[in-house]
Amino acid sequence: MGNGEDQHPPAASAPTLDAALLALITQCHNAILPGERLTLAIGAAHVGYIAPALATALGSFVTIERHTATIDPAEAHRLNPIATSLAAQFGYRTRGEDFDVRHAPDSPVLTQLDRGALPAFGVIGQGVHLNGYVRRADGIHLWIARRSATKKLDPGKLDNIVGGGVSAGMTPFETLLKEAAEEAAMPATLAARATETARIAYDMERPEGLRRDVLYCYDLELPDDFTPQAADGEVEAFILMPAAALPAIMTAGDAVKFNVNLVLIDFLLRHGVIDDLTGALRRALGVS
Amino acid sequence: MGNGEDQHPPAASAPTLDAALLALITQCHNAILPGERLTLAIGAAHVGYIAPALATALGSFVTIERHTATIDPAEAHRLNPIATSLAAQFGYRTRGEDFDVRHAPDSPVLTQLDRGALPAFGVIGQGVHLNGYVRRADGIHLWIARRSATKKLDPGKLDNIVGGGVSAGMTPFETLLKEAAEEAAMPATLAARATETARIAYDMERPEGLRRDVLYCYDLELPDDFTPQAADGEVEAFILMPAAALPAIMTAGDAVKFNVNLVLIDFLLRHGVIDDLTGALRRALGVS
Repeated sequence: MGNGEDQHPPAASAPTLDAALLALITQCHNAILPGERLTLAIGAAHVGYIAPALATALGSFVTIERHTATIDPAEAHRLNPIATSLAAQFGYRTRGEDFDVRHAPDSPVLTQLDRGALPAFGVIGQGVHLNGYVRRADGIHLWIARRSATKKLDPGKLDNIVGGGVSAGMTPFETLLKEAAEEAAMPATLAARATETARIAYDMERPEGLRRDVLYCYDLELPDDFTPQAADGEVEAFILMPAAALPAIMTAGDAVKFNVNLVLIDFLLRHGVIDDLTGALRRALGVS
Repeated sequence: MGNGEDQHPPAASAPTLDAALLALITQCHNAILPGERLTLAIGAAHVGYIAPALATALGSFVTIERHTATIDPAEAHRLNPIATSLAAQFGYRTRGEDFDVRHAPDSPVLTQLDRGALPAFGVIGQGVHLNGYVRRADGIHLWIARRSATKKLDPGKLDNIVGGGVSAGMTPFETLLKEAAEEAAMPATLAARATETARIAYDMERPEGLRRDVLYCYDLELPDDFTPQAADGEVEAFILMPAAALPAIMTAGDAVKFNVNLVLIDFLLRHGVIDDLTGALRRALGVS
């Protein structure tokens, strides 16, 4: 098709659609931990990973022993102001939005850290993603957002209808309701019908640093007459897409935000839009 | 939306959707001609552009005068075998498929040249692209192909339902009928209803060299019960997509084959799916 082209032997071929879907997942699992980093702990709780230079800069705030930099739990409240003071030196920018610091998603909150400092400290960041779908005679459709051109990360990329990071003191579900109202003008009575369907975690090296993300995935069946409205400038437009078209769109290039691919693949698997005969996709996602 | 993000000032922002559509067109017009090349002529007819080293290698086959390398029309039949003999030296690969060489799309045929040699000689390559669409209650839909993973160029990218280069001796419409049968298993009686809607030309520097492409664009309304079948291995799958979703898909990344963006933008303009208040898109496409 088109001019000046031909085919070449399968040995050198690009991945097929199935293999390309798997590659979208595995590319989010590209971090080797701890790698060249020290483990960061608050007392006995492992909470992150830091570069040796950052460990040095933390000075007496941490005790370094056996590749672990440990913060005294009584001093943990100082983590956030110290991280803020080191931002320029270590090339990150604080956002004025704190996230809770935990050992694992369901563990107790040990302190807070500015969102912009999470990658440098290798601290888990929790986010919510909503699959807003419509059942139609011609198949299941998903509302997809085009991210605003003014977003710092991934401007213009395709995204879930609603998503956002879980700020300190918020639960994922509270975050979902808040973002649904702010980003898509979705009434709380509607958004509250969303059901949690999966948690997807990955450790990924990104331009902004180490992303240790945990994505809380929700499904919400939307009425045929609901149209999301871009409410807060985070989204430029919403588009209703046939779910069956998403695998080709996701694998043809980098149109979809990197981690939204994982959320969508999980959705497509659960709704039978794609199959997974070998179980490779579910294993890679870490979902059952 | 998502973790670790924020917004930044509009001054540094990525293009909005409208500006991003325009950029898809202008990126196909990135060649400066003749630039560092000589004009290639057959007699008085300008047919291409060649690098000085290629002009030198052509030896006495061309007469060089005033930045133009001219082939004697009586010797023009030797162009193809000479181009074949120079393939390895100049880094292209012949395909065993000849294209007609002309001054312009509607000019007389002066000789033939292997498809793989077109970029090195800067000769126009003609191609056909079919917009196969379905009118539905919820809006116009387009059949989109996922290019096979084994294609040399742009594997896995999204493409028109039917497309192909115009081989020597074929008209664009004959090419359309042939490719419609081969690639999408479309009956000739159906494909023959296609109407030519636009010609889109561009001069583009690509990894394979200078592309001077002329795209013959056709529209064909397809019955709701027609489903294209991948027939010859050029296409991995066909997907029916809402036309309204295409601008976001095209501009979010590189999911769509570079020149198919132009064909789709022209289609979306003509069918009122996108507007063009300033006329910038039509001007950039060179369509009225």
